Amino acid sequence: MARPITFEIQKQTPGSLARAGVLRTPHGDVETPAYVAVGTKATVKGIQPGQYKELGIDLLIANTYHLYLSGLDQIEAAGGVANFMGTNMPTMTDSGGFQVFSLGEGFGKKLSKFLPEEAAREEGVAVYDEELATSHGKLAVVDEDGVSFTSHHDGTLHRFTPERSIEIQHKLGADIIFVFDECTAPTADHAYQKEAMERTHRWADRSLKAHRQNITANAKQGIYGIVQGGRYEDLRIESAKTLAAMDFDGYGIGGSFSKHDILGILDKVNGELPKDKPRHLLGIGEPEDIFIGVEAGIDTFDCVLPTRNGRTGGVYSVDGKYQITSAVYRDDQRPLDPECGCLVCKRHTRAYIHHLFRTKEMAGLVLASMHNLYFLTHLVKDIRASLLNDTFQEFRDTFLKRYGKVQN
Amino acid sequence: MARPITFEIQKQTPGSLARAGVLRTPHGDVETPAYVAVGTKATVKGIQPGQYKELGIDLLIANTYHLYLSGLDQIEAAGGVANFMGTNMPTMTDSGGFQVFSLGEGFGKKLSKFLPEEAAREEGVAVYDEELATSHGKLAVVDEDGVSFTSHHDGTLHRFTPERSIEIQHKLGADIIFVFDECTAPTADHAYQKEAMERTHRWADRSLKAHRQNITANAKQGIYGIVQGGRYEDLRIESAKTLAAMDFDGYGIGGSFSKHDILGILDKVNGELPKDKPRHLLGIGEPEDIFIGVEAGIDTFDCVLPTRNGRTGGVYSVDGKYQITSAVYRDDQRPLDPECGCLVCKRHTRAYIHHLFRTKEMAGLVLASMHNLYFLTHLVKDIRASLLNDTFQEFRDTFLKRYGKVQN
Repeated sequence: MARPITFEIQKQTPGSLARAGVLRTPHGDVETPAYVAVGTKATVKGIQPGQYKELGIDLLIANTYHLYLSGLDQIEAAGGVANFMGTNMPTMTDSGGFQVFSLGEGFGKKLSKFLPEEAAREEGVAVYDEELATSHGKLAVVDEDGVSFTSHHDGTLHRFTPERSIEIQHKLGADIIFVFDECTAPTADHAYQKEAMERTHRWADRSLKAHRQNITANAKQGIYGIVQGGRYEDLRIESAKTLAAMDFDGYGIGGSFSKHDILGILDKVNGELPKDKPRHLLGIGEPEDIFIGVEAGIDTFDCVLPTRNGRTGGVYSVDGKYQITSAVYRDDQRPLDPECGCLVCKRHTRAYIHHLFRTKEMAGLVLASMHNLYFLTHLVKDIRASLLNDTFQEFRDTFLKRYGKVQN
Repeated sequence: MARPITFEIQKQTPGSLARAGVLRTPHGDVETPAYVAVGTKATVKGIQPGQYKELGIDLLIANTYHLYLSGLDQIEAAGGVANFMGTNMPTMTDSGGFQVFSLGEGFGKKLSKFLPEEAAREEGVAVYDEELATSHGKLAVVDEDGVSFTSHHDGTLHRFTPERSIEIQHKLGADIIFVFDECTAPTADHAYQKEAMERTHRWADRSLKAHRQNITANAKQGIYGIVQGGRYEDLRIESAKTLAAMDFDGYGIGGSFSKHDILGILDKVNGELPKDKPRHLLGIGEPEDIFIGVEAGIDTFDCVLPTRNGRTGGVYSVDGKYQITSAVYRDDQRPLDPECGCLVCKRHTRAYIHHLFRTKEMAGLVLASMHNLYFLTHLVKDIRASLLNDTFQEFRDTFLKRYGKVQN
C-alpha cells in the first residue's frame, strides 16, 4: 500500500547534502526546503488561519502536550487539527516529549536555560535551574515504560508512554506525527545521555509499532523518528544510524535545548540518515541557521522566533533584524523591509508600526508577526529557488553579507 | 466653492425622521445609515487596516486627544490619519473634548460612571468618583478660553482651546472634524449644564471660524457641531436650535456619559437640526440603540463595543449576544453566528474560538472582534436596505424579537 507521506528529491546539489524536493501529504504537497510555522495550540500566535496561505505557510506544526491538556475531544470531533483550525493544510504534531520534560519537570520551578526568562514564561516553558536540571525526577518521573508528569496548568498528574503519545497524535490527525522521545537536560553527562538515548530508541521502536498497527491512522498519517544524543557527536551519529535502520517516513533532528549543540554536527548526522527520506530540524530557524541546515541536508525547519520576535517588536529585514520600538523609526516612512512583498510591507510604514507598539495597540504585534512569518517562509522559498538554479552558495553569501549589517 | 462634505437623502421614510442617504467625502462615499468603526489611536483595536473594507467598515473615527499625545508630526508627515493607517478611507476625528474632561480631570483619580472599571482602564478612561466629578477643576481646569489638563500618560500639562483643537484636527487631516466642546459630569446640575452648554456654543462658533478661515483645510475637511445639554431635554433642544443656526456641515449628538440620557429625546433634538445635514450619534451603538437612533433620524453611529466585547469574548449573533468563553460552546461546531457571512464565520467554529480564548491565544480576540465589527456594520447595512424598501418597522421587529432570545 502506498504510504500517505512521500518525498521526492527534485534536485540534489552535487558534492553537498543540500537538496530541493517535494513532500507529499494527504493535505497537499509542500515544496522543500520549507519553513514550518509553529502552531503550538492549533494557532500561529496572533495570525488568522485564513491568512496562513497568503503568508507563505505551507506546513504547520502543532503540539501534542499542549493540545492534550487543552482538550483532545473537540479536535478529534472536528476531524483533526487542520480542520479544527478551519484550514485544510498539511500539518505535523510533535510528540510532546520536549514539553513533558521541560514543562513537566520544571513546573513551578526553573528549567530551560536558553530561553530568555520572559519568553520562557510566555511559551509556558520554565526557566533553567542548574540544580533542578541535574536532578531528574522531581515533577517528571521517567521510567522504562514512559513518563509521569504534572500539568503546567494545574499541577494534575498525567502519564505519557510512546503508545499513549501515538494514540493522542492519531486523534489530533496531523499528516506527520513524531515518535515520543526523552529530552535530556543540557547539562546531562555522556553516561546519562547514552542511557536516555538508548531508551529513546526503544521508545522509537514502540512508537513506530503503535503507529503501524493502527491501520486507519497508518493509512492517513506518516511517522518521523527523532535523532537524539544531546551535545555528543558520537551519540548523535549512533542515534542516526539506529533510527535509519527503522522504517520511518522521515526524521526529526531535535531534543537539544541549544542550537549550538547540533548545528556543527548536522551534516554528519544527516549523512547517516536515508537519502530518500525527508529531514526536519526541530525548533531551529534563524536565517543564518537555515542556511547551515539546508547545506547539511535539512528539508524542513520550525521555529517560534518570527512570532515571538514580532510580539516584542523584533523585525526581520534584508538588512538584518531590528527593534521597531526604537525611536529612530518614529518618522520612518519606509516599509518594515523595503524589499519585502508581504501585505504588511505593501501597505504600512515603519512609522505606523512603531506608533502601534508605542501606544500598546494589538495590531502592531499582529502586523510585525505577519511580516516576520512572510520574511522567513519566503527566505526559504528563495533558498529553494537557488538550489534549483545551482546558485545556493552565491545567494547565501549575498544574503548573509547584507543581513549582517544590523541597523540598530 | 463646493463643500468637501455633502449629504444626499436618497429616501425619507414618510411620517418619520428615518432616512437613507449618502455622505460624500474627499476619500469616498459612505452610504447611510452607517456604522463608524472606532480607531482611537489610528487603529481599530486588533484589526489589520487591510481588512477594514472586508469587514464592511466604510468610515472610521479617530481621537484628537490620543493622537495629539502620541505624536502629531508623523501623522501630518504621512498626509493625515487615513494615509498614516495605510488606507485611503473616509475618516472623522472627534475633538478631544470628551477625553480631556474624562481623562484629564480623572488622571490618577476616578471619573467615568458608566464604564465598567476594567473597560474604563483599558480605554484610558478613569472610573467615576462622585466627589471628584462634582468638584471640577482638579486636573482639568476650564475657563472661558479653553481647558488646561494633564496627560493621562505622564501627567504633563497641556492646553486645548477651540482654535487649538481645530488646528490639531487640521494636521490629522480627517474628512470630518468636530468642534471642541465641554463634556460635563453626569451629575452636574441644570445650572452648571446650562453654563457649560452656553460656553460650548461659543466654542462651537470659534471652532467653526477657526476652520473656515483656514482655506486649505476648509477645502478638504468638513466640520460638525456637537449638540450638548447633558440629560436635560430643554437644554438639548436649545443646543440643537442654536447649532442649527450655525453653518456646519453636519451635527454630532454627544457629550453624555450615559446613553439613557439621550436616546429618549433624540427625535426631539434631531427635529431641530437641519434636515439636509448628516447627523452622527457619538459613542452609542448596541443593536437595539441603533434602531432607536435610525428611527430618530441618525445617519452615522460610532461605538467601541464590537471590539471591546470581542476582546473579552462577547459575541453578537442574530440570536442575541453571548459569551464564547462559556463551557457550553466547547464542542459547538456552528459558526459564531449561523447566519453571518463574515470571513470568521465562513471558516471557524465556536469550538475553535472557544479553544483560543480558553488557551489565552491572541487570535481568539482578533477573530471575535472581526466578527462583531462585521455583524454591526452589516446590521446597519441591512437597516439601510430596509429603509430603501420601506420595510424598516418589519425588519426591526423581526430582528429585535429574535435578538432578545439571548443564549446564555
